Amino acid sequence: MEPNQIVEPSTANQMEEGGGREQEGEEADPESNSLHQPLLKSSPTLSSNPLAIVGAKVSHIESLDYEINENDLFKHDWRSRSKVQVLQYIILKWTLAFLVGLLTGAIASLINLAIENIAGIKLLAVARLVEKESCVFYNVVLITFPFPNSVIGELYITGFIYFTGANLALTLFASVLCVVFAPTAAGPGIPEIKAYLNGVNTPNMFGASTLIVKIVGSIGVVSAGLDLGKEGPMVHIGTCIASLLGQGGPDNYRLKWRWLRYFNNDRDRRDLITCGAASGVCAAFRAPVGGVLFALEEVASWWRSALLWRTFFSTAMVVVVLRGFMEFCNSGKCGLFGKGGLIMFDVSSVAVSYHAMDLLPVIVIGIIGGVLGSLYNYALHKVLRLYSLINAKGRMHKVLLSVGVCLFTSACLYSLPFLAPCARCDPSLPDNACPTTGQTGNFKQFNCPDGYYNDLASLLHSTNDDAVRNIFSTSTPTEFHPISLLIFFALYCILGLITFGIATPSGLFLPIILIGSAYGRLLGLVMGPYTNIDQGLYAVLGAASLMAGSMRMTVSLCVIFLELTNNLLLLPITMIVLLISKTVGDTFNPSIYEIILHLKGLPFLEAHAEPWMRNLTVGELAAAKPSLVTLCGIEKVSRVVEVLRNTTHNGFPVVDHGVIPPAGQQSGATELHGLVLRTHIVAVLRKKWFLPERRRTEEWEVREQFTSVDLAERGQKVDEVVLTEEEMEMYIDLHPFTNTTPYTVVESMSVAKAAVLFRQVGLRHLLIVPKYQAAGMSPVVGILTRQDLRANNILVAFPHLAKSKEKEKSRVGHA
Amino acid sequence: MEPNQIVEPSTANQMEEGGGREQEGEEADPESNSLHQPLLKSSPTLSSNPLAIVGAKVSHIESLDYEINENDLFKHDWRSRSKVQVLQYIILKWTLAFLVGLLTGAIASLINLAIENIAGIKLLAVARLVEKESCVFYNVVLITFPFPNSVIGELYITGFIYFTGANLALTLFASVLCVVFAPTAAGPGIPEIKAYLNGVNTPNMFGASTLIVKIVGSIGVVSAGLDLGKEGPMVHIGTCIASLLGQGGPDNYRLKWRWLRYFNNDRDRRDLITCGAASGVCAAFRAPVGGVLFALEEVASWWRSALLWRTFFSTAMVVVVLRGFMEFCNSGKCGLFGKGGLIMFDVSSVAVSYHAMDLLPVIVIGIIGGVLGSLYNYALHKVLRLYSLINAKGRMHKVLLSVGVCLFTSACLYSLPFLAPCARCDPSLPDNACPTTGQTGNFKQFNCPDGYYNDLASLLHSTNDDAVRNIFSTSTPTEFHPISLLIFFALYCILGLITFGIATPSGLFLPIILIGSAYGRLLGLVMGPYTNIDQGLYAVLGAASLMAGSMRMTVSLCVIFLELTNNLLLLPITMIVLLISKTVGDTFNPSIYEIILHLKGLPFLEAHAEPWMRNLTVGELAAAKPSLVTLCGIEKVSRVVEVLRNTTHNGFPVVDHGVIPPAGQQSGATELHGLVLRTHIVAVLRKKWFLPERRRTEEWEVREQFTSVDLAERGQKVDEVVLTEEEMEMYIDLHPFTNTTPYTVVESMSVAKAAVLFRQVGLRHLLIVPKYQAAGMSPVVGILTRQDLRANNILVAFPHLAKSKEKEKSRVGHA
Repeated sequence: MEPNQIVEPSTANQMEEGGGREQEGEEADPESNSLHQPLLKSSPTLSSNPLAIVGAKVSHIESLDYEINENDLFKHDWRSRSKVQVLQYIILKWTLAFLVGLLTGAIASLINLAIENIAGIKLLAVARLVEKESCVFYNVVLITFPFPNSVIGELYITGFIYFTGANLALTLFASVLCVVFAPTAAGPGIPEIKAYLNGVNTPNMFGASTLIVKIVGSIGVVSAGLDLGKEGPMVHIGTCIASLLGQGGPDNYRLKWRWLRYFNNDRDRRDLITCGAASGVCAAFRAPVGGVLFALEEVASWWRSALLWRTFFSTAMVVVVLRGFMEFCNSGKCGLFGKGGLIMFDVSSVAVSYHAMDLLPVIVIGIIGGVLGSLYNYALHKVLRLYSLINAKGRMHKVLLSVGVCLFTSACLYSLPFLAPCARCDPSLPDNACPTTGQTGNFKQFNCPDGYYNDLASLLHSTNDDAVRNIFSTSTPTEFHPISLLIFFALYCILGLITFGIATPSGLFLPIILIGSAYGRLLGLVMGPYTNIDQGLYAVLGAASLMAGSMRMTVSLCVIFLELTNNLLLLPITMIVLLISKTVGDTFNPSIYEIILHLKGLPFLEAHAEPWMRNLTVGELAAAKPSLVTLCGIEKVSRVVEVLRNTTHNGFPVVDHGVIPPAGQQSGATELHGLVLRTHIVAVLRKKWFLPERRRTEEWEVREQFTSVDLAERGQKVDEVVLTEEEMEMYIDLHPFTNTTPYTVVESMSVAKAAVLFRQVGLRHLLIVPKYQAAGMSPVVGILTRQDLRANNILVAFPHLAKSKEKEKSRVGHA
Repeated sequence: MEPNQIVEPSTANQMEEGGGREQEGEEADPESNSLHQPLLKSSPTLSSNPLAIVGAKVSHIESLDYEINENDLFKHDWRSRSKVQVLQYIILKWTLAFLVGLLTGAIASLINLAIENIAGIKLLAVARLVEKESCVFYNVVLITFPFPNSVIGELYITGFIYFTGANLALTLFASVLCVVFAPTAAGPGIPEIKAYLNGVNTPNMFGASTLIVKIVGSIGVVSAGLDLGKEGPMVHIGTCIASLLGQGGPDNYRLKWRWLRYFNNDRDRRDLITCGAASGVCAAFRAPVGGVLFALEEVASWWRSALLWRTFFSTAMVVVVLRGFMEFCNSGKCGLFGKGGLIMFDVSSVAVSYHAMDLLPVIVIGIIGGVLGSLYNYALHKVLRLYSLINAKGRMHKVLLSVGVCLFTSACLYSLPFLAPCARCDPSLPDNACPTTGQTGNFKQFNCPDGYYNDLASLLHSTNDDAVRNIFSTSTPTEFHPISLLIFFALYCILGLITFGIATPSGLFLPIILIGSAYGRLLGLVMGPYTNIDQGLYAVLGAASLMAGSMRMTVSLCVIFLELTNNLLLLPITMIVLLISKTVGDTFNPSIYEIILHLKGLPFLEAHAEPWMRNLTVGELAAAKPSLVTLCGIEKVSRVVEVLRNTTHNGFPVVDHGVIPPAGQQSGATELHGLVLRTHIVAVLRKKWFLPERRRTEEWEVREQFTSVDLAERGQKVDEVVLTEEEMEMYIDLHPFTNTTPYTVVESMSVAKAAVLFRQVGLRHLLIVPKYQAAGMSPVVGILTRQDLRANNILVAFPHLAKSKEKEKSRVGHA
């Protein structure tokens, strides 16, 4: 998502609740829905609201065509498809899945390499300055006590300047890139991917510029030590790669390779993007099974067994690439890239033994996680709304916000460790383990004398990955002082809230893991005498609980943690923690991704229908939306153009009048021929394939002019078509372009069932046919789209149903 | 499944291809479909084939009603449902999920306890006899060489008699129980569960007798050392528990608890049974995540995110119970139940390190697994057909077949180890590790002198679980002689084929793991000098590859193996092996479960439609099946009874004639009111709720008589209703019982799309409405059911589509 692009609360509110009113810049009172500019075709009661905040501005959102458009051209194309072509398709499908995995793995490796090196050089330099200073300090203290002030601090200040300057430069770079070149690259991108896979065409989400900015920006902000993860962006990167591969390259330089034409449709792109999302998670956490399950549980709306297998293949490739990369780096050719980087918080060395008594702290962690998680969701929602006010003021404000957050973060990270007292190293540790002065290490010397370490510096003066690794470290029960952990917890609570909304690529996973592990470890310290679970495991459980409390995933999270921590014995208690946290969290508010989806106004369709939808029939719904526009099978060009210009509909029912009905019936019947898409009509208009007289065309006539590849092109506008007066008087035969088998419901169908059908089959348009059979009636009484079936939109038109809405609202909480 | 109940190939064949012909005992030629007894309502071209081989005989198969039947009564019931009742429902839902996990875990523990003790006592006694004998033998050889023959062998023969006798008794017990009390308890049950969750009502699958026989029978045959697993049965046990809990107890002694009425519908039962299946897998393999994924990937046809969470909760409970049980047993209170029993082939001690070179043997294993897996499927299919001939001859034959298999198995298991040479113990092993004389142990002394062990006895003279554990054992590269492994492999190939079809509970997992691990370890021996992967891991990979090659699961199998072997580092190579094996296997034939489903004639609906279905419209399909019977909204009792007696349909469209259409239309229109179910009509007939005159009733009139609970009762027959002449002349108002919102398709819809709709939404009936709108026409032109949308049935009616069928056939292979 891109929290920085969220418009003011009022607008968001209006967009959720108002529906169907073009947003034209003016401010509307969120409570009274009085200031509405009606659409051209007035739709006073129920209408769609095709707006969402994507990228820098409020955008017009379209749906995706997941339905197979069975028109004559498609049928012919399909029938004439040879075995070779089918084989081509299958080979390409798997090749693309392979490439998605390969490239995602490679890019993830590069990102890790870059971050570890940039952050490493920065941290090393600062550490040296601080150590030199503290050395001076201790010497001064010991030798010449009288003049400490004159000497102390100079190098500390140099260090601070160096630290902050580097962070600032990195953040500025990432933020400017993001603001100028690819506003959609801000945020984690997961909510938009979720919406895309639900059938919402989120514009500019998967372009080449987004990909590049996301990669470079991630490297920048994560190296800068901001409280952001690279995990969310990695998922977005995976999907960008998948999308670009599927369409043969960036928008302007597409490969026009013949094989790729099979992928020029929303269905295959959807599958590919699902593979990309799974690969991204896998690359982020080195969790192949977790990646597949994340895609399945959290991201994808439709799932097939075949897809399970393909995503699994992609993630396997990612793992192979990552493994190869790590093997390569083990030989020392990767600069400062050490054991870190590719996340794996290995706690497998701990023999987990627990008894019935240990269930108590586990339950406590689960409850805390649930409560904190929902609190976090609540607070983040408020912060994002505030930030949207700031971000809406312009690019400069966005950059300044990022810079401000960076300055605050740098100051805290640098100075807070000075508050922590130096702790004496445990002499039982091996020689070089404590204190460490290098880039990684569990016991940082920082400003302490030899033989001592600064526990807070171990957490704050390292990359986020290393911080997690340190706080997860097992068999070190006395490593962290409770005060240090408290400071750490408080700091990251604040940072986690203020950082996420800035205009840079940002992931939510790591901030949540950091907060969660802090209170987990704190609880471990408190429980220490009463339990025999290691403190490192407490930290792991804390992280898991906060993740479940905020993101509300279950099985996928469980597997990701399993693969992260590499300890299967943890499984049962992890499961219990996750179940409790999610249950507790769900009682307060929805998951963070749902909140963001809601904030951005993306028309996400839930899998289940609201119960009160049973009280409404689709006929009633259609009656409240009287803007049905049908076309005749053979229609005058002028009428077609008029319809296209004056409506924003994307599909039109095609009706034939006066057809000869089956034997024995009276004549003059009307017939529903099917549904024609706007893009296809525009394609016909552009080719000017008109008929001088009103007649049905033969199949070959069309095939000479059009292929189904032509029709697959998107994004052409009717306004670009210039027609003469003469042409306007001619006719178009829409039959060959009409999807003759659209899904239909009878008008007496309840909305609940229609919504289930719409969602399960993945439709864009659903036609409503009458239940009465009588001559002269229109064979179609309405058309339903995604927006019509969204609960909020229906409730605006049917306020009497709002009784149940109250209940719903109280559940949703944030609405 | 119950392979023993499979009727002769001819019948099976006819059932697959013929469709719609009542099977009345006579033999039909499988090739020519000439001997057909038409159903009462003749359906010459396309018809349903509601027969399948479930239990002991060919059964009439019904579908399940997963669709919400929105009739007036339901709507009223739903509207009047208070918050308390909703809460009741939610509490009960979770309580049931909890109980399913708890009971499945408890029963799994009991089964393991029983098997370990029974098999342990048997094996210990035999081992003692053999050792005593061998002791005598070695003494004799050393002291008095001249008379070996007179002394040797006596105790061996006693051992053999003891061994075989015990096995025979156990097998006989299990087999007789199964044949007499619960024929449906034979086989693993997974294919039937799969069919049930697909919407096929497999009769007698989830009863109390099935549950008990399954438990006792499993204990019997697994203790008898037959080449059968307890894993498949465990899944069936889980689902039986779920089903019984959901309906409040066994059929005849149901709890009539008021809360349970919410679960008296197919939807909630489906969810519960999914939980049961997941719990079963979890209990079988101690793999909670694997269980959930198995249910998701292999068993369930519909999946919701909410279900993911509920199954996860159930499996978490199972794990907690199993852990508690093992902790209890660790204190030595469980007799011979040692570390074994609850499967966990821990190979976590091995540090897996592999390089690019090691990919080669991994690929080889994958290919071998795929080829052997599909070969196994092919051969098992043939054997099951042969067995069905034997089993069809009667109960005695079934029992004799089981006994024969048991005798053969016992003879092989007992005698083959004598062929293996004694191997010297590795002196570096700890003192008691080699040789062992106890029940478990990797180096069995058997007939060898002290300091020597018999490697084949380690595999054959132990429970199957222990055998797997031994063959998976790591860091023992010289333990097994190649000849021993070859003998083991060959033996289990034979046993795996001949054992599965007998009339006892039987799982497929363990036999496949045994075969796979044998060739895996063999390959490890061969590759030994060239690789640094441990031989135990080769065995694991071999097992995984054969599983994938035969069962064709991917992610779930991967996770199950992960949880079984407790080694996350194995993940990447396991993934590669699974991907290759499945790919190779899929090129030859479908998965073993699909083959069994096919053999049993269960009308399973695939998720995807066949491509050639695009060339056919549902209108054409309906025209080929001219047996549409509609009812009027207010219908004469005599006509209703006639229709019910003369058809086997389960749903009837309700049409109103002469309704007053919306304003401005001509009168006399017909209207599709909805669909009424047979069971509901029968309920009305039983209550004799008739009207003296033709009139619409008020809602309160119906509500006085019926509740939606009454309508939920199943299994009542129209023939049981006795009506007087007078009553026959009265009227029934069907409106209140009619589902007013059935799913419909327009007749021009392609079968492919209709099939997708049917499967995705989970329907039982799909109404076809005309595309023409003209007065006097029927508002419904046909009705589609599960059988109508099955590829085989359609191809019989439309042979011209068979062009593509050939391709299909060659893919399916076994058809």
